[in-house]
Parts: sequence; C-alpha cells; structure tokens
Amino acid sequence: MDERGIGVFDSGLGGLTVLKEIKRILPNENIVYFGDTARVPYGPRSKETIIKYTFQAINFLRTKDVKAIVIACNTATARSLAEAQEKYDIPIIGVIEAGARTAAMTTKNGKVGVIGTEGTIKSRAYNQEIKKINKKIKIYGKACSLFVPIVEEGWANTEVARLTAKEYLKDLKEKDVDSIVLGCTHYPILKRTIGEEVGMDVKLVNPARETAYDLKKQLEEKNLMTSREEAGTCEYFVSDINEKFTSIAREFLKRKIDVSKVEIQRY
Amino acid sequence: MDERGIGVFDSGLGGLTVLKEIKRILPNENIVYFGDTARVPYGPRSKETIIKYTFQAINFLRTKDVKAIVIACNTATARSLAEAQEKYDIPIIGVIEAGARTAAMTTKNGKVGVIGTEGTIKSRAYNQEIKKINKKIKIYGKACSLFVPIVEEGWANTEVARLTAKEYLKDLKEKDVDSIVLGCTHYPILKRTIGEEVGMDVKLVNPARETAYDLKKQLEEKNLMTSREEAGTCEYFVSDINEKFTSIAREFLKRKIDVSKVEIQRY
Repeated sequence: MDERGIGVFDSGLGGLTVLKEIKRILPNENIVYFGDTARVPYGPRSKETIIKYTFQAINFLRTKDVKAIVIACNTATARSLAEAQEKYDIPIIGVIEAGARTAAMTTKNGKVGVIGTEGTIKSRAYNQEIKKINKKIKIYGKACSLFVPIVEEGWANTEVARLTAKEYLKDLKEKDVDSIVLGCTHYPILKRTIGEEVGMDVKLVNPARETAYDLKKQLEEKNLMTSREEAGTCEYFVSDINEKFTSIAREFLKRKIDVSKVEIQRY
Repeated sequence: MDERGIGVFDSGLGGLTVLKEIKRILPNENIVYFGDTARVPYGPRSKETIIKYTFQAINFLRTKDVKAIVIACNTATARSLAEAQEKYDIPIIGVIEAGARTAAMTTKNGKVGVIGTEGTIKSRAYNQEIKKINKKIKIYGKACSLFVPIVEEGWANTEVARLTAKEYLKDLKEKDVDSIVLGCTHYPILKRTIGEEVGMDVKLVNPARETAYDLKKQLEEKNLMTSREEAGTCEYFVSDINEKFTSIAREFLKRKIDVSKVEIQRY
C-alpha cells in the first residue's frame, strides 16, 4: 500500500481527458496534474526539446512526492517516454502502448489509421507498438496540426472543423481503414466531427481509458495502490495561467478547480 | 556612425515579414534575428510570461552587441514594449505604433478594424495608439487565433482559410470598417484570402513597412546608422530548430539560410 499521489503531465489541457478516466477507475488515488501551458503545443517541437520539457515536468511532479507518473500527451510519450523510463526509478506510463493495443484488438480488416500531431506521427511510435502486437496490421499515419488549435478555439463542432477533418481524413478513407486511433489527447473532443466524416463503420480508438487501466495494473502489480477509502484529491498546476485553461477545464471536468502556477524552467 | 547590428525578435517566423522590410529600407545594416520557436505562440500567454520571454530575447540579442532592437511581434509589443523600453538603454521599437499611425492616416470613414492574436486584441494596444493620434476614430478589435496555425500549416489559400476568415471578419464587415490593421506579423501571408473576404474597398494595413521606416528615423536621429557601403549580413537564431522554420523562411526570403540554436532560458 502506498498513500502517495499520481503525477499526470500534459503539454496543456488535453491530458484532462486522461485524468478524467483515471479518476473514474482509481477514484481514491490523489492526483497531481501539471499542464505546460507556457510552452504548449509540443507537436511541432524537436525531440531534444521535448525530452528536456518532459524531464522538467517529472522533476516538478517528484517534488510533490508522487509514486507513479502518467505522460498524458501523445507527443511527449512518442518523443521521450523511453528516455524518461531509463532516467527515473518510478513507474512512468505513456498513452501510446495502450492506444496501440486497443487498435490492434479493434481492427477487423487489418488497416488502422493513426491521427496526431506532427511530432507523434513523425516518431512512428504507434506503428512500432502496433507492429509489436501484430506485424500484419497496416498502419497509415496522418498529422492533423490544426485540430488542437481548433479545439482550443472552441470550434470543435463548426463547419471549419468539418472541412478541416474532411481534408485531413480523405487519405485514410481512401486506404479503407476500419479503425482510427485518436493519437492526441485533444482529439476525443472532436470525436463527433471526425465520426461524421469517416462514417459509423470506422471505430475511433481513444487511448485514455486503456491508459488508466494500464496504470491500475502497474499499481496493483507493484503493490502501490492506496488504502484510502474516501475519494482522492486533485491538485492542478500549470506553467502559465490563462483564462482559457481554467474555463475549458471547468467545463470539461464539470466543476470549479483551483490552478497554481509553477516556474517550470527551474526544475 | 555605428557599425553594430540591429536585433530583430519575434515569437517565431512571422517577424521575417518585418526583417524583409528592414533589409529593403536599410540594406547595409547587419541584422541578428531571433525567433523563439521553442515557445511560440505568444498569443494566448499571460502578460507576465511574455515580459519574461521578451527580456530573455533582448538579453540574448545584446550578447550579439546590437545597437537597437525591433520587437517584430504584435503580442510581444502589446504586452512588453513599455517594460522593455524602461529596462534597457538602447532604442527598442515595436510594430504597433507604426501600424496605428498608418491606420489613422488610411481610414476615411473613421472606422478601423484590428485583427490579431488574443493577447494583442485583449491588450487594446492598437486602440490606445490610434486614440492618441485621433480620438474620433472608432476601433473594432477581433482576435483571430486560428490564422497563425493556418499559415504555419501552409493553408493560407485554402477553403478552410476562407471559411475561417469569413467567420472572424463578419463582425468587422457589419461595422462597416474601411481599414483593417493586420495586427500580427503572420497575417500579411493571408492578405489575399482576407482581401477577398472583405472586398477591395477595405484597405489592409501592414505595419511592417512603417516599422522599418520608424527604425530608420531613430537610427538617423541618434546618429546610429552604419557607414558600411556594401550589403549587411543576416544571422538567424531560434530557440528550437525544426524543419518548418527553415523551409518557410527559405521560401519567404527566397534564399537558403543558416539557423543556429540558442538555449534561450539561460538568458
């Protein structure tokens, strides 16, 4: 048994979709969330820079005495998970392995699409993970750089979002994929728009839920679960406070939250 | 006479539109460009964070022994120009005063639109500057957060850009403005799309050219012009190297450039 908290890290607010699943599956665990809002988005940045940012986030979360860390950001997972797991001695869980496993289980025709930021798609991290499970699956990646700003503008269900989705997804439709991994934690917010574009026969895979189950399994295996019997707490930290984070977070989590600022470059 | 260079600073690559005007008007001056590509975009960040980033950029440029600095970014000018001018003892020029002056001269019906990032519009910096020149001018601001990512995706002349422009500009059209300030250095790249949406009768004001003239005037007044008779050099620094910066910069400047990386948080 271990009463310490779980650190959850994202480049901004997309990781809240993962936090929500963790709260659902592990309601009694304490969570410390850090969103790197001063340096979002990670998508277009170099591997070297993303590794540095990830290490700083982990260093900060460790000052909060956490027992495990979830990198709730596909770009950061793709670019820096292996490096982080090598450097630190606590369990560090990314979102990609879980998403890849779900996609491999979901596809029936063996053709899987992966959408994400430029960094995630270029890294080919989903390809590698899916191939580990089943070499025969064909994987088609597509970077959708405008999806994050569209979500952050609150335009997820507009004609601009639909037209953008149409443009990005036409290649995947031509390839006849039957499953698409939402390879960015913002994308579940676009699920309806994406679903309408690709049609009901294409399954949209959201790695957040499977990631939460991965976390639970690791805590159980390592005997790190809390013995607490009441609901755990949630603390929220960001590297830059802006109204958008607080308002979107409130709307998404359906309650008011307090957010504190961290000088992340000091870590 | 002063043979030192001129520092030009932007959050990313938009400032190259200003650099190009400076090269045209002051061809013999040496220029040192810094683009904060590891922390772009500045638009949604807080005033406090933007002031810190601006000071770091200026500290870095001063290590290159520059005689004047141009903040070639509307958000950084809006949020931090006054603070930077107070802190440093060399001429520091922003883009907003020049843009405001041009807008005040251009409008005939006294109704001016200003488009920019969330940070620029919220700061009301253009409103203040235009009011200083002519209190009677009515100013209508509109944040267009998706324009920067659309330009950086290379989608400036697509249907998505047109639909986005239509949505953002409908309020300004209703207000019957006869001039619109392109209050973000990326926006000149969208000039055609914006122009088609608002019609030929609306003048689009690009502050870059006037900013270069402001710089020239200040160098002349302070006796800081170079005596060099051949073309000056250009050095390019960024806080994160990615292919996009290099390729868009090459395309826009019509030549190959060398880019060096700076660890900007050390300054």
